[in-house]
Parts: sequence; C-alpha cells; structure tokens
Amino acid sequence: MSGNQLDKKSQAWSALFSEPMSELVKRYTSSVFFDKRLWAADIDGSLAHAEMLATQGVISAQDLADIQRGMAQIRAEIESGAFEWKLELEDVHLNIEARLTQLVGDAGKRLHTGRSRNDQVATDVRLWLRGEIDQIAELLADMQRALVAVAAQNTETVMPGFTHLQVAQPVSFAHHLLAYVEMFARDAERLADLRKRVNRLPLGAAALAGTSYPLDRERVARTLGFEAVCQNSLDAVSDRDFTIEFSAFASLVMVHVSRLAEEIVLWMSQNFGFINLSDRYCTGSSIMPQKRNPDVAELARGKSGRVVGHLMGLITLMKGQPLAYNKDNQEDKEPLFDTVDTVKDTLRIMAEMVGGELAADGSRSGGLTVKAEAMQAAALRGYATATDLADYLVKKGLPFRDAHEVVAHAVKEGLRAGLDLAELPLATLQGFDARIGEDVFEVLTLRGSMDARRTLGGTAPEQARAQIERHLARLG
Amino acid sequence: MSGNQLDKKSQAWSALFSEPMSELVKRYTSSVFFDKRLWAADIDGSLAHAEMLATQGVISAQDLADIQRGMAQIRAEIESGAFEWKLELEDVHLNIEARLTQLVGDAGKRLHTGRSRNDQVATDVRLWLRGEIDQIAELLADMQRALVAVAAQNTETVMPGFTHLQVAQPVSFAHHLLAYVEMFARDAERLADLRKRVNRLPLGAAALAGTSYPLDRERVARTLGFEAVCQNSLDAVSDRDFTIEFSAFASLVMVHVSRLAEEIVLWMSQNFGFINLSDRYCTGSSIMPQKRNPDVAELARGKSGRVVGHLMGLITLMKGQPLAYNKDNQEDKEPLFDTVDTVKDTLRIMAEMVGGELAADGSRSGGLTVKAEAMQAAALRGYATATDLADYLVKKGLPFRDAHEVVAHAVKEGLRAGLDLAELPLATLQGFDARIGEDVFEVLTLRGSMDARRTLGGTAPEQARAQIERHLARLG
Amino acid sequence: MSGNQLDKKSQAWSALFSEPMSELVKRYTSSVFFDKRLWAADIDGSLAHAEMLATQGVISAQDLADIQRGMAQIRAEIESGAFEWKLELEDVHLNIEARLTQLVGDAGKRLHTGRSRNDQVATDVRLWLRGEIDQIAELLADMQRALVAVAAQNTETVMPGFTHLQVAQPVSFAHHLLAYVEMFARDAERLADLRKRVNRLPLGAAALAGTSYPLDRERVARTLGFEAVCQNSLDAVSDRDFTIEFSAFASLVMVHVSRLAEEIVLWMSQNFGFINLSDRYCTGSSIMPQKRNPDVAELARGKSGRVVGHLMGLITLMKGQPLAYNKDNQEDKEPLFDTVDTVKDTLRIMAEMVGGELAADGSRSGGLTVKAEAMQAAALRGYATATDLADYLVKKGLPFRDAHEVVAHAVKEGLRAGLDLAELPLATLQGFDARIGEDVFEVLTLRGSMDARRTLGGTAPEQARAQIERHLARLG
Amino acid sequence: MSGNQLDKKSQAWSALFSEPMSELVKRYTSSVFFDKRLWAADIDGSLAHAEMLATQGVISAQDLADIQRGMAQIRAEIESGAFEWKLELEDVHLNIEARLTQLVGDAGKRLHTGRSRNDQVATDVRLWLRGEIDQIAELLADMQRALVAVAAQNTETVMPGFTHLQVAQPVSFAHHLLAYVEMFARDAERLADLRKRVNRLPLGAAALAGTSYPLDRERVARTLGFEAVCQNSLDAVSDRDFTIEFSAFASLVMVHVSRLAEEIVLWMSQNFGFINLSDRYCTGSSIMPQKRNPDVAELARGKSGRVVGHLMGLITLMKGQPLAYNKDNQEDKEPLFDTVDTVKDTLRIMAEMVGGELAADGSRSGGLTVKAEAMQAAALRGYATATDLADYLVKKGLPFRDAHEVVAHAVKEGLRAGLDLAELPLATLQGFDARIGEDVFEVLTLRGSMDARRTLGGTAPEQARAQIERHLARLG
Repeated sequence: MSGNQLDKKSQAWSALFSEPMSELVKRYTSSVFFDKRLWAADIDGSLAHAEMLATQGVISAQDLADIQRGMAQIRAEIESGAFEWKLELEDVHLNIEARLTQLVGDAGKRLHTGRSRNDQVATDVRLWLRGEIDQIAELLADMQRALVAVAAQNTETVMPGFTHLQVAQPVSFAHHLLAYVEMFARDAERLADLRKRVNRLPLGAAALAGTSYPLDRERVARTLGFEAVCQNSLDAVSDRDFTIEFSAFASLVMVHVSRLAEEIVLWMSQNFGFINLSDRYCTGSSIMPQKRNPDVAELARGKSGRVVGHLMGLITLMKGQPLAYNKDNQEDKEPLFDTVDTVKDTLRIMAEMVGGELAADGSRSGGLTVKAEAMQAAALRGYATATDLADYLVKKGLPFRDAHEVVAHAVKEGLRAGLDLAELPLATLQGFDARIGEDVFEVLTLRGSMDARRTLGGTAPEQARAQIERHLARLG
Repeated sequence: MSGNQLDKKSQAWSALFSEPMSELVKRYTSSVFFDKRLWAADIDGSLAHAEMLATQGVISAQDLADIQRGMAQIRAEIESGAFEWKLELEDVHLNIEARLTQLVGDAGKRLHTGRSRNDQVATDVRLWLRGEIDQIAELLADMQRALVAVAAQNTETVMPGFTHLQVAQPVSFAHHLLAYVEMFARDAERLADLRKRVNRLPLGAAALAGTSYPLDRERVARTLGFEAVCQNSLDAVSDRDFTIEFSAFASLVMVHVSRLAEEIVLWMSQNFGFINLSDRYCTGSSIMPQKRNPDVAELARGKSGRVVGHLMGLITLMKGQPLAYNKDNQEDKEPLFDTVDTVKDTLRIMAEMVGGELAADGSRSGGLTVKAEAMQAAALRGYATATDLADYLVKKGLPFRDAHEVVAHAVKEGLRAGLDLAELPLATLQGFDARIGEDVFEVLTLRGSMDARRTLGGTAPEQARAQIERHLARLG
Repeated sequence: MSGNQLDKKSQAWSALFSEPMSELVKRYTSSVFFDKRLWAADIDGSLAHAEMLATQGVISAQDLADIQRGMAQIRAEIESGAFEWKLELEDVHLNIEARLTQLVGDAGKRLHTGRSRNDQVATDVRLWLRGEIDQIAELLADMQRALVAVAAQNTETVMPGFTHLQVAQPVSFAHHLLAYVEMFARDAERLADLRKRVNRLPLGAAALAGTSYPLDRERVARTLGFEAVCQNSLDAVSDRDFTIEFSAFASLVMVHVSRLAEEIVLWMSQNFGFINLSDRYCTGSSIMPQKRNPDVAELARGKSGRVVGHLMGLITLMKGQPLAYNKDNQEDKEPLFDTVDTVKDTLRIMAEMVGGELAADGSRSGGLTVKAEAMQAAALRGYATATDLADYLVKKGLPFRDAHEVVAHAVKEGLRAGLDLAELPLATLQGFDARIGEDVFEVLTLRGSMDARRTLGGTAPEQARAQIERHLARLG
Repeated sequence: MSGNQLDKKSQAWSALFSEPMSELVKRYTSSVFFDKRLWAADIDGSLAHAEMLATQGVISAQDLADIQRGMAQIRAEIESGAFEWKLELEDVHLNIEARLTQLVGDAGKRLHTGRSRNDQVATDVRLWLRGEIDQIAELLADMQRALVAVAAQNTETVMPGFTHLQVAQPVSFAHHLLAYVEMFARDAERLADLRKRVNRLPLGAAALAGTSYPLDRERVARTLGFEAVCQNSLDAVSDRDFTIEFSAFASLVMVHVSRLAEEIVLWMSQNFGFINLSDRYCTGSSIMPQKRNPDVAELARGKSGRVVGHLMGLITLMKGQPLAYNKDNQEDKEPLFDTVDTVKDTLRIMAEMVGGELAADGSRSGGLTVKAEAMQAAALRGYATATDLADYLVKKGLPFRDAHEVVAHAVKEGLRAGLDLAELPLATLQGFDARIGEDVFEVLTLRGSMDARRTLGGTAPEQARAQIERHLARLG
C-alpha cells in the first residue's frame, strides 16, 4: 500500500473520510477545467520552492533532481497535449503533483513540504497575472500608437466638438482622438501601479499560519522575480484585492473602449457619416442586403458589461468573508481569466480597426477612413463659432457675461434667418453691438476658431502636433 | 455559381463586401461556440416557421417536406456529435441553415423568408429559457421539500434564535429551516410571474419592421406553445428585459442560498457544532490532516457573486442602447447560460446536502445531521428567555416599557453572578419586582418560551407542524 | 423615576448598559433623519396594532382611546412641522413612541406589547412602499399615454428604422414610440406582480420568534389592507426581497428611460435633427451662447446609474446574512427611498417632455416637435428599401438567399454611382436579375416599404393605429 | 437693463430661450443643494483663475482686486450661514458668480473669461477630493494604529486560526489583527497612487476645446498645488476616471471593513465569546431586555453595499458616453460625496471600537476586550496541531503525503475516543507510526505549534513583534 493520499482520492479524501465525494460534488467543486490554464506558473512555482527546500536542507539534492526531471517531463506532456487531466484530482495543483509522484516517487510526495494549496494557488495566480499584465501594458501602448497614428494625419481636419451631443466648438479630429490617448495612458499608469501589488510572493504562508520548516521566502521571491514577500500569512492566503483592483482597472479600460466604440458607431451612422470602417471589421445582415454594420465596435461596447459584471461579482465574493482562506475564493478565477481575455482581445481589435493592421515594415492597412468634408459640413451647422464672437466682444471691452447675452441675440436672429453667424451681414451684427467690426469675420471661421485655441491642451493644430510628439516620445 | 451568400462567407459577407473578416474579427464576433447550445430551439423554431410559410402559401408543400427531412437529419447529426460546427458561419443559425441548404438545396434557401436572425435568435433564447425555467421550478420545489423533510424531524429541537448573531429567543430548528422555505417559495412565485414575459413570440418581427409576407404569427405561437405574440417589431428584436428579469430572480435565489450556506458554515464550525455534513459534501486539506471543510456550502455562497455579476453585466449592456437591434446584444447569452447552469447545479447540490439524496422509494440518505444537544446548550447561553420574563410582568399589569427595564436589571444581576435567569433565586427576582411569583420559572424554560409563541407564524411546535402540512400540500 | 427605558436613552440603552453611546456612534447608527419619512405608515401600523390588542383584551379600551388620542395629536404635530425629531431616539419608531408616552402615559408604554421594532419597521416600509407603488403605476400609465399621444399624430411619419445605428428599413415614428410603450407596459406588469409580495404583513413576528400574546394577525392585515400575513416570523423580520425586487423593477424602468433618453439626445443632435424639445426642457451654456442642450434627457439617462447602483448595493447588503434581523438591514432604506424618488421624478419629467404638460381639459403643451422632413430625408440615405427588392425577387421565384445576393450587387452599383436603388435605371436593375420589371419601383419607395409590413406588430400605419387603439383602451 | 444673463435666469436661460425652465425641470436639473459642498474649492479655483487672468493682462488689476474683495465677503457669508443659495441658479458656480456680480459689478462678469462650468466643476471636484483624500489617508493610518495597538498586547494570545471557519492551526490574536493592517496598508498605497491622478488641473480646457485667451495653466496649477495639467481639453472636461478609481479604492476599503466587522460580530456571538465591545458601541433591543448588539460592526458591514453600489452606479453612468461633457456627469457628485462620508465615518468608528478612543496623552479607552481563555479553549477543539504531527513525521523521514495520511488515521481515532491528539497515549500514537517518540507531545501543544511557525510572515510571537515594529516605524 502506498499510503499516498492522492492515489486514494477516488475513494475518499483521506483516512478521515468514510465515503468519497458524490459525483455532483466532484463536478461542482472541481476547478481543474479552468485552472489548468495556470499550469506553467504552477510548475515554475514548484521548482522554485523545491530548489529552496534543497538549499535549506529540507529535501535532499537527489529529491530536487528527481523533481526537476519529473517536472520537465510534465511540462513536455502538457505542451504536447499528452497530459491527462483528471476531474477527481480537483485542480491543477493536485493533477501535477499526482503525476509527479507517479513519475519520481517519494521525491514527489516531498514537494508539498512547508506548502499548502492555499499559498500555492495564490502564488500561481499572481505569477500568471503578472505575465498577462505585461502583455496588456503592451496592448495599451499599441492602442495609443494606433490613435496617435490617425491623429498625426488629422491635426487640421475640422469636426464639430460636441457637448451634450450638440455642436459646441470646432475641434480637430486629431484633438478628439488624442483625448482617448489620455484615457488609455491613465489606464497604463494604473496598471503599472497595481502590478506592484500583484508582484508579491504569498508562498511560505502555508495553509494560513506559516510553517515550521526553515523556508527562505526571500530566495523564492528572487527566483520567481517577485518584488516583495507578503508579510502576513493569514492575509497572504486570503488576499484577493489584486484581482479586484485588476478588475477595476479593466472596467475603466472597457469604459474607455465603450466611449470610443459609441463614437465609432455614431460616426459610421449615415446621419454622421464622419468615417468609414474597412470591410474586414464589418458584418452584413442575413435579411437586409445593403447593411454594413460596425459590429466590432458594438460588441466591444457590449463587452464592457461583461467586465463590469466580473468586478461586481468579485466584490460580492469577498464581502464579509472571515479569515483566512474560504472555498468561496475559488470563484475568483473564471471572472479573472475572462476579464484578461476580453481586455486583450478588445484592445487588439480596436487598435487594428482604428489604426489598421501593422505590417512588419511599420505600415498600417485597414484602419478607419476619415471623411473630412462630412466632418467640416457638420461643424458648419450649429453656430460652432458663437463663443468666438463672445470672446471677440470681450476683447473689445465687454464683460464676458454681457457678451454672452449679445451673442445669444445674434444666434436667435441667425436661426430665424436660417443663416450661420458668418453669413449674417455686418450691419445686422452691429445691430447687436456697435463694437463689432469687419474683422469679426476672421474669428467666425471654423479654422480661425480652432487656431485660436492655443492654450496648453487646446485644439489648435500646433498644440495637437506638440502632444503627438510627446506621445511618440513616450510610447517609444 | 451558387449565388448562395452563405457559401461565400469565407470570402466576404456578401457581394457588397470587398474582403472577408479578419481572423481576429471572426473569432471576436463569432458566437457559435456558445450559442450552439440553442440548436434544438433553433430547429423547432424553424420548423414552426416553415410549416406556417407553407400553410400561408409562401413556400410550397415540397419545400416544407424538404426542410422537415433536412432538419430531421441535422437533428440526428447534432445528437450523435457528427455535425460539424464552423466558426466562419458565425452562429448556430447560419450553421444549421447552411447545412440545410447543403442537404436540400433551394428549399433551405427559402426557409429564411420573412425572417431575420434578429427575431430568430430572440425566439430561440426564449424557447430555450422557458424549458430551463420549468426545470428550475422543479429544483426550487425539491429544495423546499428537502428543507421541509428536515424540519419535520425537528419541530421540537430547540436552538437559539439569533438577531445580530446574539442569542435572542429560543426557536425550533424546524422553524428556522421553514424561514428558508418561505424564501424559496417566493422565488418560485417570481419565476412563475416572469415566465409569462419570457413566453411571448418575437418571430415575425423580421429584422426590425415586420415583413411584407403574409405571416400568421399567432399560428407559430400556438405551434411553439407561446402564450402571446410580441406586439411591436422594433421592441421584439431588441427586448432583453426577460434576461435581466431572469437574472434578478436568479440573484435573489443565490442571495437566499448564500444566507443558508453562511449558516451551514457557521453551524459546522467547532464554535457552533450544531450540525454535521456527510463526508460526500466535505473536502479535506492538502496540508492539515484533520480538516473536513464544508466546501460545497462555501462555494455555493461564493457563486452568488458570479450570478450577481451577470445581472450587473446585463444591465450595463442594455443601458442607453438605441433601437433596434445592436450587436451588443450578442453579449446577453453567455451570462444567461452561466446563470442558468449555476442556479441549477447549486439548487440541486444544496437540496441534497441538506435533505440527502432521494432514493426511488422516497427515502433520503446523506442529509445533514442535527446535533440537538449542542443547539440546546447554546440556547441556554445568552438569557434567551428574558423577553418571557418581561411578558410575564406585563401580564401582571406592568406596562411593557417598564417591564423591559426591570428585566434589564435582572439580567445585569445574572451576568454578575454568572447565572441564567432561571437560576436566580425567587427572592432575588422579587427584588426587581414584587409581582414575580413561583410560576415565573415555567416561563423561563426554553421549551416554555418556545411553546408560548403560538401566534400565526410563531415558533411553537404546533405552528411549525401546521406550516409543514401547508407546504407538503402545496409542493405535492 | 419613570422606569421608562426611552426616557433614559441619553444616558444608556437600558439598565444593562453602563455608559451611553458615543456621539459618533449615535450619529452613525441613527436613522431618524431619513426614516422619519415613514411616519404616517408608522402611526397607521401602531393604530391597527393597538386596536387589535384592545379587541384581544391585551390592553384596555381606555388604553386604546389614549393611544388614538395621542397619535392624532402626533399626526397633527408632524404635519404642522411642530414635532421635534430627536437624534438620540434613533429612529422614527422610538421618536413617535416616546412622544406618545409623554402625551398619554402608561398607555403609550403598552403599545409595544407583542411587537418589536424588527416587525414594526418591516411593516412600515411595506405600507409606505405600497403607496408609492400605486403612484408609480399611475406615472407609468402617464408615460405610456404621453408616448401614445405623440404616436397617434405620427402613424404616417416616415423615419429610418435603425439596426446597429445603420439605416435598415423605413418605419413610422409612431411605430418607434410604440416600442417604448411595450417596454413601460412590461414594467407595469412587473410592478403589479411584485406588489403582491410587498403587500404582506410582517407584524406579529415580534423580534424574531412570534409572541406569547394572543395576537390576531389576520385582523391587523385586514385593517391595513394587506393581502396576506407573512407565515414565518424569522423570515418576516429579515426578508428584504421586496426591496431588491422593487429595485430590479426600477432598474429596468431606468434602462428603458436611458434608451429613450439616448434616442432623444441623438434626435436633437444637429446631425439627426429629427425633433425639437421645448425650451422649458433645455438648458444653455455658461460659455457658448448658441447652446440649447437636452439636459433633462441626459440627466435621466445618467440617473439610471444611480438606481442600478442601489440595486447592487442592496444585493451586496443581503449576501451571506444569517437569520434573523441584523443591523445591516437598516441600510435598505436610503437606497429604496432614493430609488422611489428618482423613478417618480424621472417618469414625470420624461412624460411631460415627450407628450407635453397635460392641462385640465386634456390638452397637452410643450411636448416634442417632430421634424418629419428631416426624418424622411434621413430614411432616403442608406438603401432602406433593399430588403423590399429582395422580397420582390422572392415573389418572382428566387430563393431568399439568392435574392439577398442579387440585391447586394445592386446596392454596390448604387454606392458606386451615388444613387439610391429607386434612382437606378430599370435596365441596370435588370442587369442584376432579368425578373425585375417596371413594378419594382413601387416597392422601392419608403411609403411602399412601410405599408407592406402589415404583419401583426409590423410598421404599417394600419398596424400602428390598431396598436394605439389597444393601448388607449388598456390605459383608460 | 443689465444684460447679465444670470440676472434673467428666472425668465429664461438666455436671449435664445423663449420660456423659463419648468419648475419640475429646475428641481430635477439643479445641483446646488448637493454641490454647494464644493464652495470653498470653487472660490479657491476662481481666485487662482482671476489672479492668472490679471497677470496675463486679460483682466485689470482693479478687476482682480474687486473679485478678491467680493470673494472674501462671499466666503464670510457662506461660513456664517448668511449666504442665500438659490435653486434657480442651478449650481454652486452660478450661485457664487451671481452674488459676486451683485457685490462687485462688471469685474464679476469678467471672472468667467476663458472658463466654462465644464472645466470649473472638474477643477472644484478634484480640489475638494484631494483634501478628502488626505484626511482619509490619515484615517487609514489611525485604523492601522488601532489594530497595531491591540496586536501589541496580544502577540502571545492563542486563538484558533480558521480556514473554511473550521479550526485549522493555532495563531496569535496579534497575527490575526496584523492581517488587517496589511489590508489597510494596501488601501493606503492605492490611495497614494490615485491621488496623483486626481491632482491634475482641468481648468483652461474651457467648454471643451481650450480657449483663445492667453491663459497660463501651469501658473494656476502651481497656485492650487496641482502636480500637473490635463493635457487634452476634451478629456479634461469629460474625465471622471478619478471618481471611479476613488470609488474602487473605497469599495476595497469597505470590503476590508466588512471582513473585520464580520469577524467582530462572530467573536461577539455567545458561540465564540472571543471579545467584548464597550457599551458605547452596542445597542439594545426594544423588546429583548438582555440584548447587547454589535450594531456598529453590522452597520459598517452593511455600508459596504452602499459604497459598492456607488461604484457600480458611476461605471454605469460613464459607459458609452460620447465626448465631451454630457449632463449625465452631474450624477457623479452625490455618490462621490456619500462615498467619502461613509468611508470617513466608518474608518473613524471602527478604529475607535477596536482600539479605543485616543486621549490627548496617547492613552486609549473603550477598545475591545480580549477574552483570551475563550480563544484558547476554542483552539483546543478541532485538532489544531494535526499539521504539527505531520511535520514531526516528515522530520523523522516520512514523505509529507504519507505523513498526512498517518495523521488522518490518528485524528480519526481521536474523534472516536473523544480526545485531542495530545491526549492520546503514546502507545496509541505509535500504533500509527513507530517513529513517534516521547518528544511528540512538545509539538502537539498550541504554544509549541505557534512558536514553530517562524517563517517570515508566520504566526510565531517573534514574527508578530517584528511586524509590529515595522508598522510602528512606518506609521509614525
């Protein structure tokens, strides 16, 4: 008889148990079919643990060698698809450990010395997530690069700036896109901030209280590239803050995506007609032959719900949980995995749809097409230069609040006559305020208005160009 | 050349498109790997549509026969696993339609007459969900039956009733479990209410505006067992209220489960020790050999987060969507599917864990074990009969507020002396109020207190028995 | 000395307590400044309780008369603003009870016999919410009436029906508005369903276990108009399902409002220009003199977040709570109150903004102005009748899938030539399919397309008129 | 006639409007009754703006002096309560500006030059929130100090460490409390990280596009202590990321509070009896005279729902919003304000309840009382040292997995005999494994087990003392 508890799991958990789990319970509590995604982190973590155990004299050099040999084979088996994942072994950890013991005997049984699945899974998730974070950081940079690339072509493309979806003031399309660059840049900042809190080692907390073996946790941290060691064992095994913080980050990314997607849908609508998307990002209709729908943008917008839902789910999960580890926490993985997948896919596809696919030579193809005339025509509706007239009057000495009122009268007359401010005769304008002179017509053009907004962060082309330079330098 | 648009999807959506979707877009927008679950509803809906088209003379009897023959084969192929699902055909609808056309030619191409995927998918989801609702209704009844079965054995088992997790008044374990029967009974009511709103037919709305073919929507509704027909085509294709209402129902079910699970975890804790769970519902620890953990209850509690998250996701999805169908809505399916699966599994496993597995002969095995002595001992801590003393004084003529204050003094003395109220000498009690007589000790027993609460819905055994009778009659 | 526990609350809770609450705790735990809104329900509930106590012989007729007299005075004091609400008396219940005892002495102290604040507050909230539900039901009907009133003027006003915000098929503005009537009608159904579950009496559950007094709960239920009595005392005091179910209902109402508001904002945008709103529902800008912003619609859309947030908050609150009452539940009131206020205000203002203010003579003023020409012009962009051409070909014998492909070619040619389908020469059309004849141009008009969709729930004017008749009959 | 637009707001927004807002609309859209809380930030921001305008020569030195004089008076009026807030002036900004113009005439009307309410409100909220963040940082430190103070008294107080609420291994109460210190320390890190993103100046973005006046934004930033200037005007006026990020931070704080509160409620329950709370943090019952309820902890736990709800509300609010400012955003303030208030009050009251009120001399009174015997007694139930026996066997040469199985047999025997492992005769233990010797009894004591866990972050008293030193040094 082997005495190995894992061999007998199909009969009962351990000698303490008189019957095995029911099939329904096995299926309900098993996590292996989603947490096997952590396999590489699990092996890396085990190797670092074993190497430290050997250094500390807890296991022998031979044990370590056996474990390393066994793990190498398991790695190969998983990569080739030959590894057999077993539901009754519950999770990725026991599946790998049981196979290891099959392969190398007692050394495999010694691997779990000074370790519990509680600290093991926390370590695995952090290792895995750290890798994903680094990929997402790059995708966020790609997203920004795509926006900057289109912006660079459009610093002088005039479109209506909206507030309340009403024409407000003329802005450049570049300036508009650069607003999104700011958003994704903030997301990248947040990601860098939270990475520090992900990159801490829980291993060594054991089940909850630490362990009586002379572990060298700092050594394991160095081996695995962790910046620090979790300082309290109870906290280490029950802390899921980092999944919630990551999900909150992801929700903000998706909120930003949803805003950009909303605008792409609007701009593609025939009533705007500001842009066109490549066919490869559109779908048709099974009934309406004329349709070219911006499905990708809509789906990206819709997927914000999924990610926000996961955030809510994770918070609900942790609310009111006593220390230390509770099985509830197993429910952290599926939402986290799906959040990572969704954010990565969405950033990749949105960047491509906006900026085009990037070829090896740095050229881009398939990005959005700007319809500058439609944008300009739209800016000419809605008295976009009314504020410029008010500012003109202020420069002539009128207090701003009075100038505002004068221009309201002028707009009212324009609406009555069906004319833009620039189309009203000078005499008419002077009827509202005698200070108005011939030079007023310069400030009433779209381009004049846009050029005038030269304050830092304003829409003037020179400002947009400076911002583009800054972003290009920053994004490398 | 076939001219069939579906054959050419790998090149482009239709003649209107100059390039196919990119691989990334195909994967991002495709739904077939989750919506294939709707296949039976899709075939049923198509057959009802075809049968009506033939009756109305829109397609020929031969077309109908061909469609029926083709669908029978497709059904067999899917059931046997032989059907080949194709990512590039996007969803369950086009996969089945493309195969149908392969099998029966032009009749297959005629099936989509007067129909769009917009109304088709809405119909499929409703048909499928209706079936799941009926299963969940039965599982809710099973959950109630399991609770009633345990309650029936425990109408006289005294435990401390808690408020604020402080001992309040003695109640029976039966009474406590029956509180959960009320909750699940309300859930069942809500489910019956919302089923009406699920069971309405959107088919016939076509893409969004209805159709110019002479469809008989009432006939299709009758064929498919729908109670009513959606009355506005724009609403029919964009309404996802029923998924949100279902998710809100499911969230409440899971909130109730989380409360029961919380209590099971508490009761299993050594500090309570009120119950024991069968080994088949417990797991051990990879490090601590003595552990028997109530994992199932914890996981069920944790899964409330998942379902609540889906509700939040679905609401976020629908917020601010203009009419009519938008691609965002494709995101309704995965959360809905997962919600249904989670609620079903959780109700099944919780019912078994509480009431035991039900054998063919109606006997139950493996349910929770009640530790009546521990419950009773716990009820003796905490002055559970203090209110009875106050009520006793009221019956002797003291206003309730004054009686409350007298008893507070008595409890204070008990705490000082380390004695329960029933253990204080009569003389001591009389020192607080001279109206107290020898008969006070009858009201100060746990059983006396419990028996006295005979108001409708109170904890007296006769009340609990009456409630159990009512539930058994109701649940059949 | 009075012995009345309430008189001494400023020193300590009862004789059991050796110190008063700290000021911070008083402020943190006190609810009187929001729950005083329940005062009328609290008085009504107390009077029904007292009347029953007297009938059952628990208190004397004189006590009842005293209580009735005292409560009449308190009601007058509150209505006149003379009542002094005290923070240290925690909540509406103790404030009223303390004042009652001040006014009528011992009878006041007897009122709380057989009752706890746990069942009292549950009763108050249900009574109050029932009244609000009835007001909201009326506001939902008003909302529907406003939409129907505008629809009735626009059964032949053609606008583009959108899917994916792309022009899909022509629909009438009436048909579009009637989609919202369906949504609000479903909300009204849900409200009627949940009202049954609100309208049940918890009083008599006492603290958690029922009471030893011979209460007649059915009598109290009849007096207060409750349809049923809560059947389990533990459940009665801890059930907050009805607040969650109400919040889920309210979230759906607000989702519907957010969709309508989104469309109003779009339609008001210069790029659509489909409608105009009255000045009284618009605001200007502090800087841009030309602005008329649809602030009300935007704010209504934004307020969906608030209500959804409350739903999530309430679910989080209840998750994992053990039986019976816990103080957490005090947190149910503020979100519930704010949800009620928000839904009422929003329905009222949206109904007015759409349909105008209703004068005593039934006339409406200030509702939205329809710009039919702009709607029609928009419908002429985007090949809205392409499906009609496909249907035309089907009627000529082509299978639908082939017809779809033929029309895609035609649209491609139209796009190339900058012409709508109806503007292409017959010869060109025949080049795509020889079956196309002169009669094709009838089906290619907007009006022809719309009139053709006569299926139940379709956009044809006769259908819309029938629906309007149905709604008018239903709404009274 | 003044021509000042603000004077005429009660008649119409500006000359462009033909009617005033309806009363309902005024009430619905007005924010002054909640945003007046921003008054000090609004004045500070205006003064910095005016000072810069004067420096840049946009307004005269006299204008600046007038504005400064007027603002000083307004500040005094608000502080004294004499200021009259007017609903029809909508918000804090127009209320203050209108009063300023009343007081100083044209200079007041010039203040709004180069500024819009869009950038003004964003500036005000950031200024205000920055101040609150600094207060919350201090409260988080206080919370940690309170926990550390109690921990310092309890490094050798043994309690059962739980996983799954089952007795797992002995830990010290200090170690348990220090887990919460880690959580709140992470919260403080997150707060410091997000503060950087709050502390950026939007002013100068004007309505959305920047302005044509020669503003010196860097100067204003320096004056107001902002670290940086928002770099894109469209983003500056529509960015509400910082409110969402703050709410996510606050949700995590409240999740941590909810966990601690849950444990306090458990520990206060008679079934645990681990601690006692001071009377000042407890409440009684209106019906049960013996009750001392941990209301504060429960309410704190419940308030997590409120804060999480606000987070969800804010995300819902921002989802899918097109650029730039929309009125929806007004809805950001009430949830943000309530979140700040809740977090501040909750941290303050929890810190006091745990660690006591802090007197001027640094002493603490009223904190929780530790019942060390009850904790120790509880640790003796549940075979808390079973892992120690397994570790003992490993040190004797058995592989861990085999040792685990041996101990399971020993525990089974203990359960059968009703004895703890340390109470089993040596011979019995040796029956499970012959390697067990007399020295085994040392490792089977609670204290032996605890002392042995000396790994970094483990529960050994020396570890806890080291952590306490680290925290004290860090917290100052």
